[in-house]
Amino acid sequence: MLTERIESLLAVYRDGLLQDTLPFWFPRCVDQEHGGFMTARNRDGSIIDTDKCVWQQGRATWLLATLYVRVEQRKEWLDWAENGLVFMQRHCFDTDGRMFFQVTRSGKPLRKRRYVFSEAFAAIAHAAWARATNDKEATREARILFRLFLRYLNTPGLLPPKGIPETRPTRGLAIPMITINIAQTLREMIGDEDFCTAEIDRCIGEIQTYFVKPDMQCVLETVGLNGEFIDHYDGRMINPGHAIEAAWFILHEARVRGGDQKLIVMGCQILDWMWERGWDTEYGGMLYFVDARGLPVQEYWHDMKFWWPHNETIIATLLAHHLTGQDKYERWHQLVHDWAYSHFPDPEFGEWYGYLHRDGRISTPAKGTMWKGPFHLPRMQLYCWQLLEEMREKM
Amino acid sequence: MLTERIESLLAVYRDGLLQDTLPFWFPRCVDQEHGGFMTARNRDGSIIDTDKCVWQQGRATWLLATLYVRVEQRKEWLDWAENGLVFMQRHCFDTDGRMFFQVTRSGKPLRKRRYVFSEAFAAIAHAAWARATNDKEATREARILFRLFLRYLNTPGLLPPKGIPETRPTRGLAIPMITINIAQTLREMIGDEDFCTAEIDRCIGEIQTYFVKPDMQCVLETVGLNGEFIDHYDGRMINPGHAIEAAWFILHEARVRGGDQKLIVMGCQILDWMWERGWDTEYGGMLYFVDARGLPVQEYWHDMKFWWPHNETIIATLLAHHLTGQDKYERWHQLVHDWAYSHFPDPEFGEWYGYLHRDGRISTPAKGTMWKGPFHLPRMQLYCWQLLEEMREKM
Repeated sequence: MLTERIESLLAVYRDGLLQDTLPFWFPRCVDQEHGGFMTARNRDGSIIDTDKCVWQQGRATWLLATLYVRVEQRKEWLDWAENGLVFMQRHCFDTDGRMFFQVTRSGKPLRKRRYVFSEAFAAIAHAAWARATNDKEATREARILFRLFLRYLNTPGLLPPKGIPETRPTRGLAIPMITINIAQTLREMIGDEDFCTAEIDRCIGEIQTYFVKPDMQCVLETVGLNGEFIDHYDGRMINPGHAIEAAWFILHEARVRGGDQKLIVMGCQILDWMWERGWDTEYGGMLYFVDARGLPVQEYWHDMKFWWPHNETIIATLLAHHLTGQDKYERWHQLVHDWAYSHFPDPEFGEWYGYLHRDGRISTPAKGTMWKGPFHLPRMQLYCWQLLEEMREKM
Repeated sequence: MLTERIESLLAVYRDGLLQDTLPFWFPRCVDQEHGGFMTARNRDGSIIDTDKCVWQQGRATWLLATLYVRVEQRKEWLDWAENGLVFMQRHCFDTDGRMFFQVTRSGKPLRKRRYVFSEAFAAIAHAAWARATNDKEATREARILFRLFLRYLNTPGLLPPKGIPETRPTRGLAIPMITINIAQTLREMIGDEDFCTAEIDRCIGEIQTYFVKPDMQCVLETVGLNGEFIDHYDGRMINPGHAIEAAWFILHEARVRGGDQKLIVMGCQILDWMWERGWDTEYGGMLYFVDARGLPVQEYWHDMKFWWPHNETIIATLLAHHLTGQDKYERWHQLVHDWAYSHFPDPEFGEWYGYLHRDGRISTPAKGTMWKGPFHLPRMQLYCWQLLEEMREKM
């Protein structure tokens, strides 16, 4: 990549993060009355719903504490992070140690879900906070949450089953994938090198063994317990943006390990296949769901363009280019970057729209929902900014 | 409505049912090996998924037995209905008397859902079968299923709660609505006049008391236990096609009762408000979800055009015109009929596409899924055909 291109991209991501994304969310979504964050926001930032998604509490806390650690020790970032952490600790835990999924503005529980993703995001939030403030209690809490997460996922029968698993038992890509991300974050923020690296190796092995399908040239989302292809709606439904997120977690691991070739090959292989599956050659952008055999997908929003698969693909292609030097990945990065930046940003009120139709038209002007908050976009901006700084230094 | 128009519409619905919709599904989806119906079908009728949705087993059985009762005593319709009934009885019941939601081709259980809609469709299937064959055991089974349905919905604590109901208890429109439909079907097919009519009155009262909101000029889908407006995503999300389906159940009740004016006023009021909310003045057709306060809807497919709201709106507008003689409803009927017939039918392989984008482009070519089977479209064709016959006789 040419130095000029590096400089210009670096400015896009850095300035986008600091001057556009962060000012859209903060201090606006910080609830000064009850604590926590209200992330359900209309185009102009006004509130759509005061309910609080627990995922977003953890993710926003992680983001703010991480910015404090990796960008600058701004007191406001720390204050807002604390506001999220305290709200989670006070209102988001059930009596069994598990967390809720959605609570009211004042913190009364509304929903608890089967899966332990609220706990995953709370773990990375506590870890980043612990690093930012050297808070030993938060370090301990991050470890407890990560172990609770692992215990629930790896102890048969502990999580309520999805459907009737005896008939068609399955395993899902999301679980090893997010485990890698929590382990990488805990290792970066609070150490625990051996434990975290072992978990990462285990999960990368699981993805390779069960989900990566060379004969089909794709990564499946849902497989049988031994990796069997399930030739039904769920088993055929692939999520290119999601698999590409897994690809960059693996490429990031290669980067952390000083350029581990095996991991680079694996991450790039996943990226190559899923780009092929997900890139919309007609309208541009990443399709949401694709059927592995080319049959119709049952989910109604299969051909929409969501913001986050574009964030993940921008990271993955830039990282693949950085690690391999291949022109192909620079081209792909430019393709997905240009498509995303010409369709998602809102020049008037800032941040990105989240949900576009296949051809790029806006489906909803909402900037935040229970699912979209300050996470994928600022994480991408931060990651790419700092990766480009490293690339610049190596020129 | 002019006689010519009546004749031409009658032919469209009757011939569409007998020469297009039914031949698309039958005998193709009848599983000669394991019984039941495989309704997940691609554009050309080929199989997408062999799993069986229990809703579709009940609905298809109801349709076939109803055709036998109301159209013609064709042996094949009865044989196929029996094939559905036997499969349900053998494979779709759990040991607690409740039914599954999805089973494999051979009938092994895959999913069971909180709600008792599988039981609702099985009840109408048994009732229509009982009437077609004078089968006393099926009559008894239809009654048992309807009472099980009512008991689960009306006994606090019997159904697993949705979310954590203590914080924000709700009631949903779907429950009184579908109760009306089961009660109307059982009354038509197996009698039980007093019991069914009392249930219908109770449910119409419930809709009027809790869901009909004159101050907001709409019918809500989800309200507080006492009908309170819940100013959050779920409480604001209205489903015009669904409320219009409720409207025609109420108008049908008015028709059965020889033109009950109070019910005509109520049904037409719901239709008026929800047409106003749901009719897409930009592209035509019925929008799927609309926010009661005009805020963004969180569900991704909010602005898509699904087949079934169009089926329900075609019935409701024709019935409203029949009962009131108002030109407005004839105009609306023509608008929605014309939009639907110029976008949903597939002239090459028959039947209707189910899922269009807002502007009418096809989102998926699938003709059948776990959700779409031989139900809404043929029910509309049958209802409108027979209603137009009645209108013709009265000319």
